[in-house]
Amino acid sequence: MPETEFATTLVVLDLTGIFVFAVSGALVAVRKNLDLFAALVLGGVTGLGGGFIRDVLIGATPPAALADWRYLLVPIAAGLLTFFFHASIGRLERVITLFDAFGLALFCVTGALKAVDYGLEPLPAALLGMVTGIGGGMIRDVLAGNVPVIFEGVVYATPALVGAAVAVLLDRTDLPLVVVAAAGFSTCLGFRLLALVRGWRAPLPKGPANV
Amino acid sequence: MPETEFATTLVVLDLTGIFVFAVSGALVAVRKNLDLFAALVLGGVTGLGGGFIRDVLIGATPPAALADWRYLLVPIAAGLLTFFFHASIGRLERVITLFDAFGLALFCVTGALKAVDYGLEPLPAALLGMVTGIGGGMIRDVLAGNVPVIFEGVVYATPALVGAAVAVLLDRTDLPLVVVAAAGFSTCLGFRLLALVRGWRAPLPKGPANV
Amino acid sequence: MPETEFATTLVVLDLTGIFVFAVSGALVAVRKNLDLFAALVLGGVTGLGGGFIRDVLIGATPPAALADWRYLLVPIAAGLLTFFFHASIGRLERVITLFDAFGLALFCVTGALKAVDYGLEPLPAALLGMVTGIGGGMIRDVLAGNVPVIFEGVVYATPALVGAAVAVLLDRTDLPLVVVAAAGFSTCLGFRLLALVRGWRAPLPKGPANV
Repeated sequence: MPETEFATTLVVLDLTGIFVFAVSGALVAVRKNLDLFAALVLGGVTGLGGGFIRDVLIGATPPAALADWRYLLVPIAAGLLTFFFHASIGRLERVITLFDAFGLALFCVTGALKAVDYGLEPLPAALLGMVTGIGGGMIRDVLAGNVPVIFEGVVYATPALVGAAVAVLLDRTDLPLVVVAAAGFSTCLGFRLLALVRGWRAPLPKGPANV
Repeated sequence: MPETEFATTLVVLDLTGIFVFAVSGALVAVRKNLDLFAALVLGGVTGLGGGFIRDVLIGATPPAALADWRYLLVPIAAGLLTFFFHASIGRLERVITLFDAFGLALFCVTGALKAVDYGLEPLPAALLGMVTGIGGGMIRDVLAGNVPVIFEGVVYATPALVGAAVAVLLDRTDLPLVVVAAAGFSTCLGFRLLALVRGWRAPLPKGPANV
Repeated sequence: MPETEFATTLVVLDLTGIFVFAVSGALVAVRKNLDLFAALVLGGVTGLGGGFIRDVLIGATPPAALADWRYLLVPIAAGLLTFFFHASIGRLERVITLFDAFGLALFCVTGALKAVDYGLEPLPAALLGMVTGIGGGMIRDVLAGNVPVIFEGVVYATPALVGAAVAVLLDRTDLPLVVVAAAGFSTCLGFRLLALVRGWRAPLPKGPANV
């Protein structure tokens, strides 16, 4: 694939990821019976929050989504659509979960590679890739007054971390960037989908927690 | 109005806004029966948090309030006063709501214009103006264990966004800064007060949210 | 003490502080019956979050813990140990509280002196020292869906503020850095331990809060 086509593909994937994440944020607002504004804010932070945390931590300010206004239209559109057509969108739960896995796989890889670009070592870069993928959803849950869903047994962050790690490690080889990104992406996506299909759960603490 | 007088007016308005926001934060602490320290922290984050988020996102670090220690005394004073005289201050609810609208109108304009100064385009700048106005209150509510009040139908963020947008758009004309700021300020303030007087509510989702 | 020995001592103390804070974060996860991943995240943010907030606010990005991957291994180890051996670790509550006071005393001093290094004035620097000490625990509590424990009468933030203030003020004299740091550290630690032993409580609001 030529460079420019790859770049265009990346932007389209990126906007798709932001859109799906924003839909999940706006759905949380609707389900808590919060107002239109909450749907827009929760949509926005879910779609963009992970990247904001990464960019603020690595000093890449202003974050990309604030430097390019088109990135802001996507979560706004997702928030409006979800608020007004939530009944139909809510029925697409399985489709949303699938697209969400795509978004996660994409964000963990682009987040990790951006951190590498800013000079971070492999371990912090992989962690920041994971944060890019899961950060928006965590802010969404905290703002909506929920404990983050990914704390309660869902296998979600680990695929992001593993996918990010694969990308970071392959990035140190001579492989072309497309291959590096595709490997990280596929690892995260495959892992996440397997976890969904097989119903894997993250381990819970054993025995009584002596409070 | 000469430049220096305008600057002094701005600082006085700014400190007034921080003070009133800080009072609202400390009142939340008192009403949750939290301790003196919580009143100071919630006062501080409510008064300064919106500006902190903006400054961190646009890379204007350290934030103004940390570079000028006098900005820190205002929320501390507000927190102490509110903690020890909350009974009297609580009775001033309507006055506080009025001043709070002033603070919102001011912060959305100064926040948006600062973002423009740092090179942001109109849409992100207007959004950051809104964030400057509403961010402190959102952190306050999350720290106090509440869902942000602005998520539950209050018309609060929209006036801030509209006021910020007016300021950002007029700033691209040849109008003097005083006029630009005054127009954005009045728009937000008028909108917010109208919403309060008329009892406007933000739209809530329609129909059952199929959880 | 020669400079290099002092530096090594500082790193060891720093890692000890991060470890103990991370244990407290992971214990909150276990006690809420959250999963392994939550134990790691809550451990990580409790150990490193205060420093992250400070570094982001003063513009020292990426934060030290992201620039040096060894800093990341400590909270990961603490999270794993706590998750798998929480029954034993929970019984060490008093030891943890003691070490936690060490961590607080250390972080408030190193945080404040770093802020001074970045050009902040004494009052903001002391506040950022306090934030370095208490910020991680506040993020932990918010993510776990709790109101921050330090809002409910615990004498915890005040020792951190006083210790940080002592360090910042002595730093303006000709005293050697070791003495400055030791004085701030001892002040915070002594204050915190006295509060624990004597059962001091922060003042709660008096009279009914007229909601």
